[in-house]
Amino acid sequence: MDSSKRKCRIVIDVMGGDFAPGNNILGIRQVLEESQNLRNNLQIILAGKKAEIEKSAAEHKLDLSKVEILDCDDVIEMSDSPVQAVRVKKESSIVKGMYYVKEGNADAFVSAGNTGAMMAASTFILGRIPGVERPTIGTMLPNVYGVCAVFDAGANVDAKPHHLVEHAVLGSIFAHEILNKPNPTVGLLNVGEEEGKGNEVVKKAHELLKETKLNFVGNVEGKDILKSNIDVVVCDGFIGNIVLKFAEGVIVLLKHLIKSYADASLTNKLKIGLVKNSFREIFSDLNYEKYGGVPLLGVNHISIIGHGSSSPLAIKNMILKAAEMHEKDLINKLKEAVKAHLG
Amino acid sequence: MDSSKRKCRIVIDVMGGDFAPGNNILGIRQVLEESQNLRNNLQIILAGKKAEIEKSAAEHKLDLSKVEILDCDDVIEMSDSPVQAVRVKKESSIVKGMYYVKEGNADAFVSAGNTGAMMAASTFILGRIPGVERPTIGTMLPNVYGVCAVFDAGANVDAKPHHLVEHAVLGSIFAHEILNKPNPTVGLLNVGEEEGKGNEVVKKAHELLKETKLNFVGNVEGKDILKSNIDVVVCDGFIGNIVLKFAEGVIVLLKHLIKSYADASLTNKLKIGLVKNSFREIFSDLNYEKYGGVPLLGVNHISIIGHGSSSPLAIKNMILKAAEMHEKDLINKLKEAVKAHLG
Repeated sequence: MDSSKRKCRIVIDVMGGDFAPGNNILGIRQVLEESQNLRNNLQIILAGKKAEIEKSAAEHKLDLSKVEILDCDDVIEMSDSPVQAVRVKKESSIVKGMYYVKEGNADAFVSAGNTGAMMAASTFILGRIPGVERPTIGTMLPNVYGVCAVFDAGANVDAKPHHLVEHAVLGSIFAHEILNKPNPTVGLLNVGEEEGKGNEVVKKAHELLKETKLNFVGNVEGKDILKSNIDVVVCDGFIGNIVLKFAEGVIVLLKHLIKSYADASLTNKLKIGLVKNSFREIFSDLNYEKYGGVPLLGVNHISIIGHGSSSPLAIKNMILKAAEMHEKDLINKLKEAVKAHLG
Repeated sequence: MDSSKRKCRIVIDVMGGDFAPGNNILGIRQVLEESQNLRNNLQIILAGKKAEIEKSAAEHKLDLSKVEILDCDDVIEMSDSPVQAVRVKKESSIVKGMYYVKEGNADAFVSAGNTGAMMAASTFILGRIPGVERPTIGTMLPNVYGVCAVFDAGANVDAKPHHLVEHAVLGSIFAHEILNKPNPTVGLLNVGEEEGKGNEVVKKAHELLKETKLNFVGNVEGKDILKSNIDVVVCDGFIGNIVLKFAEGVIVLLKHLIKSYADASLTNKLKIGLVKNSFREIFSDLNYEKYGGVPLLGVNHISIIGHGSSSPLAIKNMILKAAEMHEKDLINKLKEAVKAHLG
């Protein structure tokens, strides 16, 4: 397949996120301006209230003749109860946009909106890949070797041991195709490296993972996410979500410590002033915007969920990631892998 | 009680840790040199092989006339199976030292040795406070408001909801007495703030915590450990341990990012050189040595567990922390709290 020629149609939930529709419109504009090559194959579909889209597009100078609009009368708010909202708000951008993908009119859906609603709509509307019981979201954390993907980062809590195996299979394919890892190493997040460590779920999961054909390297600890050469770390969504959010807290704490130091004296302020740009460069790897959003794997189409506070850059990167996943035919590769490993 | 006059006898496991006995001997010397006031009330007991203690003391110029030696023929190695080692190695510094405390010859035991063996020996030999089913270790993490104590950080995995309540009670008293928090706020670590979030254990624990007289503020997320005004965060030891070790990984990653930046060009190297000391000052709060070790709460005497790689500074701070816990009569306060809240 000549993937460079493959047409890619991506639906963006323009109403999603804390800074909607503005940041979504700006992100889309950046994609259209910067990706000349991609643009020829890329069709962007804006799901949302038409009037609001037109107003925001005018304000942010997005040329609407280059895109398609899927007019949606309703919006799932960040505060809405996810499952309930997906059931009731049939005209919302998330539900209508997801059906648009399911019915073959588009290849991917991306949204910085209500995370729970995105997971529910993806699972219920797009449907699960045969053999997958629990779709999983992965978060990319920067590490000493580049990046580590943690599955699951919050799609499901109270995971059973075999769900962790599903995460491992889906995560491995993602790491291979999208993170360009030739033979991704998979680690099981635990409280110690020795076999037999941990709670009942991971003890059993360890046994199951050993039996797979994955490149399973055994138990890994919290620190290994950041400092070891592990491509995919597998854990319950309860833990992955706490780790992901703890990592967000690290950025806040670092900024606070640097500011406190600068505020302590004029000399300190001058010193920090000198290296402000260096700081930005050093810590740029810690910026979530680089990865844009988290993929939900295990459903029948591409679905990417962005941070509620997504910037235009994060929106742009989510769209580009969705396009890459489509070009690389990720969904079919996931289906094949599930059949091979879990069938 | 005039606590300043209270005699404090602390047993230090001189054989414990990756750099034993050297770092332990150096840490003890620092305590004796620096704490003139404390020294008058402080009796330090060195548990370990007498010959090795004498050799290391000579090498590191520790005056043994100021201390007591508890000669122990055996050592529990870092690689020993904890429960087994505690059962079999009756002459080890951990087992013999712990009995020395239990029998009333000393008030506290500190060790940078085998963590599992320390937990097992503390629980089996010192015994649990009546009403406590699962003793808990707490880790102090720096945050925007100073420090946040996370209980449990690995003493027990697969905790039941009522164990989390135990952690909350013990952690609150610790935060009040040792971290000087007037009315410690307690948060339940979860994947979202809303009630009803999370796995089955935390849902039930949430209900139980609401019924206590603790200053329970509800669910908190991973990021709140570092950025919110929460004094005590309660979680299963499996999760707390992963978070604690992830935090260790953050330091490694930061050092790596700074070094990579410096190595990229001579200009970068010079820039980093200019602010090297600032970095050290800014990140000093992230240094685990400040807290020395983690307290094991819920047993009948003071027990502090150090990091295997404890520096002399960390050893010193562990000893001082044990002395403070004794001066403040922490164990009796914990007993009273357990009776009041869990009785």
